Amino acid sequence: MTPTPAPHDQPRFAIGVDYGTGAVRALVADTDSGEELAVASWEYAHGRRGVITDAADPNLARQHPADYAEGFTRTVAEAVASASRNPRFHPSRVVGIGIDTTGSTPLPLDADARPLALNPQLAENPAAMAWLWKDHTSHAEAAEITERAAGTPYLTACGNVYSSEWFWSKALRCARTSPKVFDAAHAWVELCDYIPALLTGVTDPRAIKRSICAAGHKGMYHPAWGGLPPADFLASLHPSLPKLRDTYTHPALPADQPAGTLTPISPTSSACPTTPPVAAGALDAHMGAIGAGVAPGTLVKILGTSTCDCLVAPLTDSIVTIPGVSGVVPESVLPGMLGIEAGQSAVGDIFDWYVSRIGNGFQPTTANLPDPASTHAHLTKLAAALAPGQSGLLALDWHNGNRNVLADPLLTGLILGQTLHTTPAETYRALIEATAFGARMILERLAQHDITIDRIVNCGGIADKSPLVMQIYADVCNRPMHIARSSEACALGAAACAAVVGGAHPDVPTAQHAMTGTKPRSYTPDPARAATYAKLFDLYTKLHDAFGGVQSAPDLGPVMKQLLAIRDDVRRAQTA
Amino acid sequence: MTPTPAPHDQPRFAIGVDYGTGAVRALVADTDSGEELAVASWEYAHGRRGVITDAADPNLARQHPADYAEGFTRTVAEAVASASRNPRFHPSRVVGIGIDTTGSTPLPLDADARPLALNPQLAENPAAMAWLWKDHTSHAEAAEITERAAGTPYLTACGNVYSSEWFWSKALRCARTSPKVFDAAHAWVELCDYIPALLTGVTDPRAIKRSICAAGHKGMYHPAWGGLPPADFLASLHPSLPKLRDTYTHPALPADQPAGTLTPISPTSSACPTTPPVAAGALDAHMGAIGAGVAPGTLVKILGTSTCDCLVAPLTDSIVTIPGVSGVVPESVLPGMLGIEAGQSAVGDIFDWYVSRIGNGFQPTTANLPDPASTHAHLTKLAAALAPGQSGLLALDWHNGNRNVLADPLLTGLILGQTLHTTPAETYRALIEATAFGARMILERLAQHDITIDRIVNCGGIADKSPLVMQIYADVCNRPMHIARSSEACALGAAACAAVVGGAHPDVPTAQHAMTGTKPRSYTPDPARAATYAKLFDLYTKLHDAFGGVQSAPDLGPVMKQLLAIRDDVRRAQTA
Repeated sequence: MTPTPAPHDQPRFAIGVDYGTGAVRALVADTDSGEELAVASWEYAHGRRGVITDAADPNLARQHPADYAEGFTRTVAEAVASASRNPRFHPSRVVGIGIDTTGSTPLPLDADARPLALNPQLAENPAAMAWLWKDHTSHAEAAEITERAAGTPYLTACGNVYSSEWFWSKALRCARTSPKVFDAAHAWVELCDYIPALLTGVTDPRAIKRSICAAGHKGMYHPAWGGLPPADFLASLHPSLPKLRDTYTHPALPADQPAGTLTPISPTSSACPTTPPVAAGALDAHMGAIGAGVAPGTLVKILGTSTCDCLVAPLTDSIVTIPGVSGVVPESVLPGMLGIEAGQSAVGDIFDWYVSRIGNGFQPTTANLPDPASTHAHLTKLAAALAPGQSGLLALDWHNGNRNVLADPLLTGLILGQTLHTTPAETYRALIEATAFGARMILERLAQHDITIDRIVNCGGIADKSPLVMQIYADVCNRPMHIARSSEACALGAAACAAVVGGAHPDVPTAQHAMTGTKPRSYTPDPARAATYAKLFDLYTKLHDAFGGVQSAPDLGPVMKQLLAIRDDVRRAQTA
Repeated sequence: MTPTPAPHDQPRFAIGVDYGTGAVRALVADTDSGEELAVASWEYAHGRRGVITDAADPNLARQHPADYAEGFTRTVAEAVASASRNPRFHPSRVVGIGIDTTGSTPLPLDADARPLALNPQLAENPAAMAWLWKDHTSHAEAAEITERAAGTPYLTACGNVYSSEWFWSKALRCARTSPKVFDAAHAWVELCDYIPALLTGVTDPRAIKRSICAAGHKGMYHPAWGGLPPADFLASLHPSLPKLRDTYTHPALPADQPAGTLTPISPTSSACPTTPPVAAGALDAHMGAIGAGVAPGTLVKILGTSTCDCLVAPLTDSIVTIPGVSGVVPESVLPGMLGIEAGQSAVGDIFDWYVSRIGNGFQPTTANLPDPASTHAHLTKLAAALAPGQSGLLALDWHNGNRNVLADPLLTGLILGQTLHTTPAETYRALIEATAFGARMILERLAQHDITIDRIVNCGGIADKSPLVMQIYADVCNRPMHIARSSEACALGAAACAAVVGGAHPDVPTAQHAMTGTKPRSYTPDPARAATYAKLFDLYTKLHDAFGGVQSAPDLGPVMKQLLAIRDDVRRAQTA
């Protein structure tokens, strides 16, 4: 155990800032108790809910870097002002600031470490913006990297399949399709590297601290081969690619290390009147894992637009791989532990698609459309009244590709079992169940590789807001589902790291012990529902393997009939 | 050629009455020209759009017999009154009345040939009502009949697989599950037998004329084994079943034969003031085929809630079978020709389901819901702007099972290829395309068995109202699609038969020549669209065979990727 820090007279606070897909959130937390004094959020000004898309290319998803500084200033200023209404709080008692962001969300910078999109001539060019994690334009490049890396160790830490969501696919795609932008770039950085650099006044790309979790999970960075892959490997992909190594600071850091101290972003910005240390950034899911209490044996699921499963295992000297699991990277989640990350590329996004794009897409006018939240509430109420298997529906949750365990972005959604009586609520429940089956598929893969999971803690918007989703996850996975105490687990994780760099705690586990926890209520599996879901999961596995190309396809002829038989059994049991 | 009838001084008219799924329609037509003087329709009073359902059993679909007499009186009275505004028309010039109905829609009758459901004690009992064609409650009984008939010739005329939509499945189901109703029945008749009996004042079930097309396609009736299957075969299914043979008039008749003369249905009914002959009834699709000009080499597609494909071939002495095609029955479509019937169990029903059940099913209130017709119009407009393959979607059209060529009611709908950008209009088009692929599957099966098709004529509501659907059918089938001149082809076919029994024409082909035709505008396949659809049909065939259990499933792993590749090709071509 690490020593307890010396007692202190005054309460101390840490600020965590979470750059999500749609909004920025800032949290002020008490470093002794984790008590959350204030939360402020701001939706990005550019794009639709923060995402810039292209009707001609459904794979494109970008963010405009102009929103990043504004997002910090607005949310931190508001959170500090709000916290200041509490007499215990004073800005001078903020000991540190921590940052987490989506990822892999790389963006190109100029020689002054400014995003290229802030150059007015490039402001409208999507290639110069941030390439959001869910941008899949570079799937061909990802496949090429996977092929090129065969026989090398560079993909051993990320499941042996490189993703179109990741750093090098996107940089390569830019080099290929927007060479002017690529040539103008002096560096490419992850968003979780850029924000701390922005906040600490870095003006030289070579001085930007790199996040070990982004580097290790997304950038083929590993101590075993000395950091990034060598220049000749990158040059074999594109002759211009090796230059990105030159501005890549080594070694990459875990988030319990400082990136610098806060510097006003602009002469007029005064988000935080003091200059506390800023922690090195990390991916949102990894900070969420910390904020939800990740520890040996505890898997944290971060449930949002997509999901991420984070856990830790003892560090070993050898390279550990789990086929189909995105990342196994030393120190990426907790310093001193092996970090393991898996995930699903769309979860909440699928539910939102069904409500907003499908449900609200039948009419010519957008006037008088219902609020998506009210539709979610209505469908949730109806879906909660259904028993597993009752609808006869079965879906695949691949609307944004499959991250794990297939690691294939070129997969799409599927739903089967429709009759002329099928309703939106039945479909909505089938989509929720599909994501739960996808979650179980990951758990089974981890179990096959002897990763021990004693407890699952869920966090993120869906974990907080949808008892229906959490109960289905408990029933499908046949495991209790616990819920993180904080509704802002990512920002709280960032605040815990800020507390460490600010000296309030000696290390992250100690900060977690003080600042994080779970809610009293958890979701327990029901044996009867779990039994029906076991049958449905067998059928899901058939579809998964057949359409995922896992093996010679199983015979699908009986699948529809088996679903109807399950449906009829369930309905008979209900009327008996 | 048959001789032309003697010239006549006065115009002559025939009335065709079409008992559809949702409404009754009556048509007054000039027997010389086919000119339609009046059409009247009435939506059934019972059920939702004519269909009585059961929330606990999605397979149940019934109609209430109380609506049948009222439907005749209301529509014929209105049509005659409307025609009477034309000075050429007079009720005394009506030479005959013809009837067509949905089927197989059997109903149980009492000893006076009255529907059991008209007995107040049974009026609410679904088993005593008419078992509508799309009732699938008897799928287990259908499978049992198929199994029991193995080694006998009784299914050779109906594709070797008995359907849950058909007469004996439903009667057997009633005997099993509602023995009181079954025991109370003195006869079971098809709806197309019942209506002529009702109109001609029959009060003894044994005097009811039976329709050859319903008997042959739905009732295992064939001259080769002397009509119905023998009593011992029926007794092997259920000991009470043979009694239905005793009230089954032999031989069954084609619709160019008279059933009797019109008798007022009740003392107060005066739908038609004269007493012309009433033709023997027939199934709606077969009358539609006549009204659309079915002839050797001409296939007629009747496109409605479901579809039926009718064609004729030369009569032979041997039993002709086409695997997976529902029926090949002597004289069932045209007297003196072999009748061939195939079909799809849901087409318009799928589009309506998507608009009414899905599109209008997202909100808690049914107030202010858009009119389904306006939603159809909106989605049609958006879907028409899409190119084949552009959406990346592919669907199976099995929401109400598959009638041909799989003959399996225990199949359900499927749609794959969804992304987070998929829209309702894309889905709507994919559902239309799915029904077109199903139509092509039937054409290919007929071609494999050397059935010559020179020309396809479409009729029914969808053929008239949806240029989008017809163009997609032309492009998918890579054949011109012609449209029947009459919007009421079924009723016009019934009127043509009425003209024959009334002596205005010597036979049905002569009546067709005078009274039927196609519209000037037809739909021509576009080579580029047809080429894309050929690729998509290959993928449809993979899904069809895999989920239909046709053979050991093809490898489905590449299907989603192939759809995405087609999608990307199409989109690139559009922006080039």
